[in-house]
Amino acid sequence: MTVSPWTVTALTLFPEMFPGPLGQSLAGKALENGLWKVDTVDIRSFATDKHKTVDDAPMGGGAGMVMRPDVIDAALASVADAPGPLVYPSPRGRVFDQTVARELAAEPGVRILCGRYEGVDQRVLDKWEVREISLGDFILSGGEPAALVMLDACLRLIPGVMGSSESLEEESFESGLLEYPLYTRPAEWEGRKVPDVLLSGHHENIRAWRRAQAEAVTKRRRPDLWTRYAGAENVA
Amino acid sequence: MTVSPWTVTALTLFPEMFPGPLGQSLAGKALENGLWKVDTVDIRSFATDKHKTVDDAPMGGGAGMVMRPDVIDAALASVADAPGPLVYPSPRGRVFDQTVARELAAEPGVRILCGRYEGVDQRVLDKWEVREISLGDFILSGGEPAALVMLDACLRLIPGVMGSSESLEEESFESGLLEYPLYTRPAEWEGRKVPDVLLSGHHENIRAWRRAQAEAVTKRRRPDLWTRYAGAENVA
Repeated sequence: MTVSPWTVTALTLFPEMFPGPLGQSLAGKALENGLWKVDTVDIRSFATDKHKTVDDAPMGGGAGMVMRPDVIDAALASVADAPGPLVYPSPRGRVFDQTVARELAAEPGVRILCGRYEGVDQRVLDKWEVREISLGDFILSGGEPAALVMLDACLRLIPGVMGSSESLEEESFESGLLEYPLYTRPAEWEGRKVPDVLLSGHHENIRAWRRAQAEAVTKRRRPDLWTRYAGAENVA
Repeated sequence: MTVSPWTVTALTLFPEMFPGPLGQSLAGKALENGLWKVDTVDIRSFATDKHKTVDDAPMGGGAGMVMRPDVIDAALASVADAPGPLVYPSPRGRVFDQTVARELAAEPGVRILCGRYEGVDQRVLDKWEVREISLGDFILSGGEPAALVMLDACLRLIPGVMGSSESLEEESFESGLLEYPLYTRPAEWEGRKVPDVLLSGHHENIRAWRRAQAEAVTKRRRPDLWTRYAGAENVA
């Protein structure tokens, strides 16, 4: 029995932005091997006038343009049967994190609506119950760069994409902490030494040191994460 | 007098990922017009053995590989004179937001070190006083997709890249609030009406409605942002 590929359906005015960076490296190999696929839908092909207009002025005035509800609606209707939830990268959405990545990766795929201009008419987002997801508190030229990052985070969680499932688990955010500092050979480089404990071969001590380092950097740099972690672990 | 282009120097194992999506749309036009440029530096070209090795096992054991300090050091030395701060996208860093985007856009450019595998040996990050910046609390296959998003956020702030400077100012996060909902024509679409106030032509009322909507959505969806905004504005 063959497994269906994890299916990305990207609705965009710039279909050539996909797969972009996801066509390289491990995600690129997985794409070649059929572990995932990407279908692009050109939003402009759903425009109905001869100028292929997809946007109009904001109702009530103001700068910029808004994507038309009728055009977006037709584009969304065309992918109603494509697998996975319908996601709209938008600064108004739920903040994307490793939990969201895991949720999306567990779906059969994702349909992703990439906005341009000021954004999309609210009525068509309401009609389709689009899941707004925010990559962070900043403004991008459009949804595509955000989509590429969200997809990258999902793809490495798809079984078979990463070489070893082990390295998935040890990294930041799988534990709720920032990662401990990393070192490799040589033990001394330009007068800078690797911490002694890492040369000890004492696995318990190494584990304890790494945990302490991860806790310390999280506490110092990200008190918000630390509070959540400490609450969940019932420490401090 | 000609203005120097805003200069991106990307250190990467995947030079072909740049400019990627930034080669399209407004950023792409600005690239063609010389408002910015991107120089890629292939980290692998600084490997010194015949296998072109850039990584080694983590000191102290564990999964995955770590980028070697000597190779990264040589790559960084080669761009010591390139303009702008040296940024390393990493989940351990300061969280990227519109403030960081504005700070970077105000520089003559940015040098951006894209990590792969588990990350980079800490000693070389310390030596070069690299600025770690986090795109968010999730794990990517490498620094490149994060770099492309950070650069996209910066590029739209470079003078001349956007059509109108007006639309820069009204959007989310320039005000500290999430954006109000957007509408365009028609006034009624599939039985869904645009809010009456937007049809009133009364600019003061429209402004007040939008502000109230922006405050309400921020309060409901992002209490963290709301707290910061309310504190800054001295409102409860």
